[in-house]
Amino acid sequence: MALIVQKYGGTSVGNPERIKNVAKRVAKFHAQGHQVVVVVSAMSGETNKLIALAKEISASPDPRELDQICATGEQVTIGLLAMALKEIGVPARSYTGGQVKVLTDNTFTKARILSIDEHNMRADLDAGKVVVVAGFQGVDADGNVTTLGRGGSDTSGVALAAALKADECQIYTDVDGVYTTDPRVVPEAKKLDTITFEEMLEMASLGSKVLQIRSVEFAGKYKVKLRVLSSFQDEGEGTLITVEEDKNMEQPIISGIAFNRDEAKLTMLGVPDTPGIAYQILGSIADANIDVDMIIQNVGHDGTTDFSFTVNRGDYAKAQGILETVKQKLGAREVTGDNKICKVSAVGVGMRSHPGVASKMFKALADEGINIQMISTSEIKISVVLDEKYLELAVRVLHRTFGLDQ
Amino acid sequence: MALIVQKYGGTSVGNPERIKNVAKRVAKFHAQGHQVVVVVSAMSGETNKLIALAKEISASPDPRELDQICATGEQVTIGLLAMALKEIGVPARSYTGGQVKVLTDNTFTKARILSIDEHNMRADLDAGKVVVVAGFQGVDADGNVTTLGRGGSDTSGVALAAALKADECQIYTDVDGVYTTDPRVVPEAKKLDTITFEEMLEMASLGSKVLQIRSVEFAGKYKVKLRVLSSFQDEGEGTLITVEEDKNMEQPIISGIAFNRDEAKLTMLGVPDTPGIAYQILGSIADANIDVDMIIQNVGHDGTTDFSFTVNRGDYAKAQGILETVKQKLGAREVTGDNKICKVSAVGVGMRSHPGVASKMFKALADEGINIQMISTSEIKISVVLDEKYLELAVRVLHRTFGLDQ
Repeated sequence: MALIVQKYGGTSVGNPERIKNVAKRVAKFHAQGHQVVVVVSAMSGETNKLIALAKEISASPDPRELDQICATGEQVTIGLLAMALKEIGVPARSYTGGQVKVLTDNTFTKARILSIDEHNMRADLDAGKVVVVAGFQGVDADGNVTTLGRGGSDTSGVALAAALKADECQIYTDVDGVYTTDPRVVPEAKKLDTITFEEMLEMASLGSKVLQIRSVEFAGKYKVKLRVLSSFQDEGEGTLITVEEDKNMEQPIISGIAFNRDEAKLTMLGVPDTPGIAYQILGSIADANIDVDMIIQNVGHDGTTDFSFTVNRGDYAKAQGILETVKQKLGAREVTGDNKICKVSAVGVGMRSHPGVASKMFKALADEGINIQMISTSEIKISVVLDEKYLELAVRVLHRTFGLDQ
Repeated sequence: MALIVQKYGGTSVGNPERIKNVAKRVAKFHAQGHQVVVVVSAMSGETNKLIALAKEISASPDPRELDQICATGEQVTIGLLAMALKEIGVPARSYTGGQVKVLTDNTFTKARILSIDEHNMRADLDAGKVVVVAGFQGVDADGNVTTLGRGGSDTSGVALAAALKADECQIYTDVDGVYTTDPRVVPEAKKLDTITFEEMLEMASLGSKVLQIRSVEFAGKYKVKLRVLSSFQDEGEGTLITVEEDKNMEQPIISGIAFNRDEAKLTMLGVPDTPGIAYQILGSIADANIDVDMIIQNVGHDGTTDFSFTVNRGDYAKAQGILETVKQKLGAREVTGDNKICKVSAVGVGMRSHPGVASKMFKALADEGINIQMISTSEIKISVVLDEKYLELAVRVLHRTFGLDQ
């Protein structure tokens, strides 16, 4: 008998028929004697409908009230799923984030989980009930409803698994696992049986939309056994996300090619090359709640340097405005930017022990005449920023170059 | 400066445009220096949509989960209205029933309010904020979401007004006040400037759908000054529901003609005429959570008596089934019933001091050849059960008979 947390996304609970199917799947695990906690998203399209409603009231809706509204999407799903379970004879009980309670900070629309009270859930599980929890949401210390940001239901699932010390956290989605790259771009992409947390982290942060990055961080930190599965197939083991790389196998150098088309780059040219520059530039960006992805600063010359970073394309105009103000203050020369870029990355724990991966990657791109605008590397990934028109070509070339088609 | 509770129904907040209009009206009161608490229903149609969704999962949805789902309708409205207020510069904060908190018992789908914590609301009001509260909902002692039943937002409004000792509770609706009868049946129906709580109670319980009966009880009990107004007109004082009849004015004998087409009657014939019979019959009905309206038992003969009552038409089949079981137990002769009936009532505190009202009423109906099936009276109302085909005719005749057209 195991304790399993299962998370079902919006597509998996998209209509009453699908909710009934999820209930059947959960019932199967319950019948096998497992304790099951189910975390669900809003029915697909619902969150967007609620946001559209809010936008009719206000162009930039008040974040607290937006969370109050958006949290209702998941609340409907938990009620329907608990009903569907009871309807087929499985005792069940639904919980909103507040009822659990999932305590978060008060950063509305992007809240972070601080703690989870397992008391109520544990009592229900011990009484043989299936516990159905609303993903994506929590409450702050003052009882305000908060949401965790898009895809936050994954994080809810993993956090609940960590709090309950679950044996496994299963993320059901519309794909049957993690692939070497997006099969829509490279039809030869292969499903991975396992991937390490670190690789998954790089893959997720680089735009492989299978799992929300925070959920992977959480899973790695709390050693939650995480598995990605298809909610539309009964067979298949999905992809297991492991804590350590498999020492017994010949590790492939590169596990996957990730990419992101939603980026924009910004550069401040001729910044006085003095200590504290990076903080002064990025501090203002962070204060505006804009997430920064890549950050690049090369060596300076003539007492000045150039400072570049990338942000989500939706934050481009806002970030540009902030930089113009910062430019005055710092006496920098110019702010430039481009929102027609993409980022392509090769990810793999194997590159730690294999030098020459970077040069192999750059050569492959050069052979296709693709100009590299920016480069950034970590222990297990190499990312390049390219003109967005090269995205598909670059991904296909790299997928082949690193032998992922085989 | 007064403390005003305003309640807006589903039609008044039926779309973003109307929500903005409500915000403007609230802003006007706020600008005049009043403290305002706004109670809102779900946008019209939303609750029905949620119930339909639940019915797709289960023919008789689990009541706890149904409440979990249905409460989201109001939660969306409060977020939107608070947003709309902030958008026009009025500080505002939304509260679900649980956030207030409105403590109820755990009779899901028909919960009763036990207490209201005014702490948070008072702090916001004192800070100059408009407080926006979700009607129709609360939480039980275990933190489960509960709802108060259809029309429960009126009760929420009055209960909040009572808890906050508000100067006035304004119920905004799609009519501009309480009428002598339904203007759709009698075009000559007149708006009443005032009506007593007792009369309103009889009017409401008899089917004048302006206010939910429990809200009127609540208002009477806690001496809340209650006013019914139109949310679509800027002018007009609506109808004030007063604690006492106006001693200074010539009181009309009858204030209004109420009616209800949603009733069904049930009779148990030949019940042994012994103590405890009424309890044994109605106890089983109450246990099934069926509300009983009129109850009639006439003097018995030959050791048996006939026992009749009316229920909501939707509960007719269920009540009939229960009576068949009770019949066996009591050794009664037969259960009969009719769900093609209606109830028409003349209501007025004036009848206390005017004998002969009943006979005037019966004569008027007899003159039109309308057969009376059942009669029940209280201090201030006379109700008759008729074949439903006579409803409009009876209401028109009585409205004219008691001079309400003038």
